[in-house]
Amino acid sequence: MRVVLKYGGSSVATIEKIKAISGYISKLKKEKYDEIVVVASAMGKTTDALIKMANEISSNPDQRELDSLLSTGEQQTVTLLSIALNAEGEKAVSLTGSQANVKTMGIHTKSKIKSIDVERIENHLKDGRIVIVTGFQGVNDDGDITTLGRGGSDTSAVALAAALGCECRIYTDVEGIYSVDPRRYRDAKLLDKISYEEMMEMAHLGAGVMETRAVELGKKFNIPIFVGRSLSEAGGTYIMEKDSALEEKLVTGLSIANEIIVTTISNIDYSAEKIAEIFSTINNCGLSINMITQNISRDRKTDISFSCTLGEKYLLDQVVEQIRNRYPEIEIEYQDNLGMISVVGIGMINNSGIAGRFFSALSSAGVEFYQVTTSEISISCSVDRNLINRAVESAAVEFGL
Amino acid sequence: MRVVLKYGGSSVATIEKIKAISGYISKLKKEKYDEIVVVASAMGKTTDALIKMANEISSNPDQRELDSLLSTGEQQTVTLLSIALNAEGEKAVSLTGSQANVKTMGIHTKSKIKSIDVERIENHLKDGRIVIVTGFQGVNDDGDITTLGRGGSDTSAVALAAALGCECRIYTDVEGIYSVDPRRYRDAKLLDKISYEEMMEMAHLGAGVMETRAVELGKKFNIPIFVGRSLSEAGGTYIMEKDSALEEKLVTGLSIANEIIVTTISNIDYSAEKIAEIFSTINNCGLSINMITQNISRDRKTDISFSCTLGEKYLLDQVVEQIRNRYPEIEIEYQDNLGMISVVGIGMINNSGIAGRFFSALSSAGVEFYQVTTSEISISCSVDRNLINRAVESAAVEFGL
Repeated sequence: MRVVLKYGGSSVATIEKIKAISGYISKLKKEKYDEIVVVASAMGKTTDALIKMANEISSNPDQRELDSLLSTGEQQTVTLLSIALNAEGEKAVSLTGSQANVKTMGIHTKSKIKSIDVERIENHLKDGRIVIVTGFQGVNDDGDITTLGRGGSDTSAVALAAALGCECRIYTDVEGIYSVDPRRYRDAKLLDKISYEEMMEMAHLGAGVMETRAVELGKKFNIPIFVGRSLSEAGGTYIMEKDSALEEKLVTGLSIANEIIVTTISNIDYSAEKIAEIFSTINNCGLSINMITQNISRDRKTDISFSCTLGEKYLLDQVVEQIRNRYPEIEIEYQDNLGMISVVGIGMINNSGIAGRFFSALSSAGVEFYQVTTSEISISCSVDRNLINRAVESAAVEFGL
Repeated sequence: MRVVLKYGGSSVATIEKIKAISGYISKLKKEKYDEIVVVASAMGKTTDALIKMANEISSNPDQRELDSLLSTGEQQTVTLLSIALNAEGEKAVSLTGSQANVKTMGIHTKSKIKSIDVERIENHLKDGRIVIVTGFQGVNDDGDITTLGRGGSDTSAVALAAALGCECRIYTDVEGIYSVDPRRYRDAKLLDKISYEEMMEMAHLGAGVMETRAVELGKKFNIPIFVGRSLSEAGGTYIMEKDSALEEKLVTGLSIANEIIVTTISNIDYSAEKIAEIFSTINNCGLSINMITQNISRDRKTDISFSCTLGEKYLLDQVVEQIRNRYPEIEIEYQDNLGMISVVGIGMINNSGIAGRFFSALSSAGVEFYQVTTSEISISCSVDRNLINRAVESAAVEFGL
């Protein structure tokens, strides 16, 4: 059986950890999989250290060069892991993104995988070699080294699994995907399975275990993705196509964003152009926003609220200054003591009772909710930050998470 | 005018040094050379640190993987230097050995350059870019990354200069090539010029400024090699074809090896086969030996002496044990208090008086000499280590070095 295994930066942070993973892979090769491809990230904080060096030279380093610089981090991990596997008596070979023919397109530091020609990998597998490929990187049509952006190693692993037609196993420092973040709710349940769609909503809404692009790719090529703890086959969650068993459950998980600011802009004369311009300003400043709510009142005035993380307050300040300069008449208000809680479940598509149950649960627990947004498979609301735990518990109990 | 500039590890050891070199190259681009190719080594002790990591995993790391690991050191330097040049407003681009089409052959960690296809570099130069190429590395016919062995960056630089048809300037932390090591003889003269042949003898005999293979390559393609101090156009030495001006001088330089052991094997019944076997044993143990002297006495018994550095005593011990096991009758003696002094000069080819003058100078200074070996352009002898300085001074004065 063939498999792609992926190890993130914290799993390969030290020489000791690399040796432990090598021993584990060697065991898997003997006992379970005869064809193994490994994808590895840069060791621990290596990428950060390289970025720091580049920034000591220039606050705006050339992006082509930055990509080539950063790619050395993964190259070091894969060669060290290959040295370790060879030392254990396995036949192993490392490949850079370029050597593995991971072709990318798009701009430097945020490239996308265009294609992977797996012939070289297939040949190595046929010869009984364990193939270790750098995550996070590829090569574009000009022969330049590119990177896929933070978290891109998950995407590399799923793309390779798709090209090789096998399961992708993402090893990390958590047990798998929980219905609720277990640091927030002690009784959270480890999920056996979750659908791609639910996982994408969870990732998007702050669960932070998996890169959304990787899940999207898994969905596109219908590649089962297993997420579990390094050096262990116990526990773990499969991200896979929804099946009837999954659909029985209305709510699969609950995602939490702890520190958000909600900015409300009011007293705007409504015009689609004006609204669009405000969101262009937000985008140009590089501010990532999440919830957007908009109401129009009878006199054609409108209120818009949007949320961002507390960590991006400095970007928010730039946005607000530019909006104020352009439209001095508008009023801007912040609520910076909020958090966000979302319920996610593919079952919601065909069931309209969830919102009512969710709001009742919050209300019975004495938790007020402010902005509310919904997607086909999720409902999110902002609540006072100091009441988040109470909100989480009430929703978790209500939906049996 | 076109040029290849080479910076070694100590010249690029810190971000500050990389910035200073970037400023200097930018100045050269404006004032002196319109087409610049830069070859750079790994920063400071990076290569040693990477080797240490590999050795923490295995005392005998897979050589293919080690090459790919080590190559990341130069890749980091060239991208950082390119970031610095771009930040100064120059157009610069970095290339790995593979991207620069430096094709190699032979075994990993000791590969040789087979060819360089400079089309990509020529195109970048035409577009006005400064091209920064990793030293020390290339790619073999299998697409695997290879390295050229320690000091290989000099070879990369000269090979590129040969392929691009231009001068090669090696920047380092010394002023140039001296007639005698200036740390040993205060009045040593900086040479304007030295022939390839003399430089090769000097390098081989311990001068340590330039990689011998690089000088050989310079000779083969008749590429002038300039050696001088980083960030300075003053001083410096040209290594070039011998011309009449060079030939007037009988002795160009003096090279010193401080800590050598001379091992003498005696009471051997002479047979070419036996002698060959002894030297095979030396080679198989990886011991580097220098002087070899052999005398045959009338009763077909022979004495053989050879020298090695004190640092390789542990290898010498292995050699001696194996020889003793094979030929229990032979006697082995060490002299571990010796150094070696050599005079080098292309003028010696046509002049037989040098040996006499050299031996007289030593003798007048009260320095006894033991083993003596000669090549066409050099004479070396071993002397007591504590008399080396006196020997150096007497020879330097005799030949006006």
